[in-house]
Amino acid sequence: MKDNTKISSAVIKRLPRYRRYLSELQKKNIDRISSNELSNLIGYTASQIRQDLNNFGGFGQQGYGYNIQSLFNEISIILGLDQEYKMVILGAGNLGQAIANYTHYYKEGFKVCAMFDVNPKIIGLKINDIEVLDYEVLENYLVNNSIDIGIICTNKDSAQEVVDKLSDGGIKGIWNFATTDLVIRDDIAIENVHLSDSLHSLAYYIKRNQQKGS
Amino acid sequence: MKDNTKISSAVIKRLPRYRRYLSELQKKNIDRISSNELSNLIGYTASQIRQDLNNFGGFGQQGYGYNIQSLFNEISIILGLDQEYKMVILGAGNLGQAIANYTHYYKEGFKVCAMFDVNPKIIGLKINDIEVLDYEVLENYLVNNSIDIGIICTNKDSAQEVVDKLSDGGIKGIWNFATTDLVIRDDIAIENVHLSDSLHSLAYYIKRNQQKGS
Repeated sequence: MKDNTKISSAVIKRLPRYRRYLSELQKKNIDRISSNELSNLIGYTASQIRQDLNNFGGFGQQGYGYNIQSLFNEISIILGLDQEYKMVILGAGNLGQAIANYTHYYKEGFKVCAMFDVNPKIIGLKINDIEVLDYEVLENYLVNNSIDIGIICTNKDSAQEVVDKLSDGGIKGIWNFATTDLVIRDDIAIENVHLSDSLHSLAYYIKRNQQKGS
Repeated sequence: MKDNTKISSAVIKRLPRYRRYLSELQKKNIDRISSNELSNLIGYTASQIRQDLNNFGGFGQQGYGYNIQSLFNEISIILGLDQEYKMVILGAGNLGQAIANYTHYYKEGFKVCAMFDVNPKIIGLKINDIEVLDYEVLENYLVNNSIDIGIICTNKDSAQEVVDKLSDGGIKGIWNFATTDLVIRDDIAIENVHLSDSLHSLAYYIKRNQQKGS
């Protein structure tokens, strides 16, 4: 495998998608696939697919295609899905609870260990067997539990403070759902899910289609 | 304003982010901002910002900067946020309920009118005053209500069937949370929120940081 740290972020963004399609193919008991067939499925060009997968040393054989199982495994390892991640959810409102209830992540090695909130009405509840703890004990909790990922489901005004506390507590990654951009140390990974941005883009394309049609 | 339909999707992707920062500046009662100051805030280069905003005829004046209020308004109009959108949620599980409960969208003109599910235990419930209807009546509901956006919160195996029904019913846009890519007519807009893909990217960056550090 080539040096992981040199792969462009554009390629990394596409890997989970490759993996998703490969997983579907596995379920259909398909063993091999050519870059052309993959192209028809995924929608990237065959040449882009070959280029992307070459980043990792290339698993395809000319005229023979890719072995789906080993390509899936290799991408999983590259994505870091060969290890387990302990997560905490910050903010146990609707969104936090939705994520806690989404058990699909567990199967992939992402485990929610605890949730935190400041609301006394929510503290003490169990969501999908995960306890909602008082935000006051977060610092202590982080000292005693080796947590990898903090999922930010607070309102945007609290998000930065929460992230600072997580950073001090040794977190390795932030999955941010708060509608704000966070300042974070370089050695901590961050992925933003800005749902409003996505909805606004959708509104744009709807309006554009209307204008095209009129 | 230039022709909206010619703007690249990369620029469109950035507009909601511009708008978010401009909204924050408005709250701080700031009137004007230069592209350099915007650059420091948002993290795009000043030249990229000028280029992006020039797509819309350019609202900046040399040496004077952008008028925040009018730039905000103009971007809102371009994004189609000057009109209202009627939405339905398909799948009233945790994620569907989280979205129904997230009232922030209402203020921006996105209104959830109804939710649909196949589960008799959920049908008839009200989530944030929005009724969960039987999926069986969806077709009829679409005939009688002019719905703009369908939010897909079903499992991935049902998603395509649901989207086909929405398309036949005259929907204009799909906001897809199901972990699958959907086939859809060209005149219908679609935005995918693949949460798993985002989490997998995060895992990659965490692993990469570990490798860098080791």
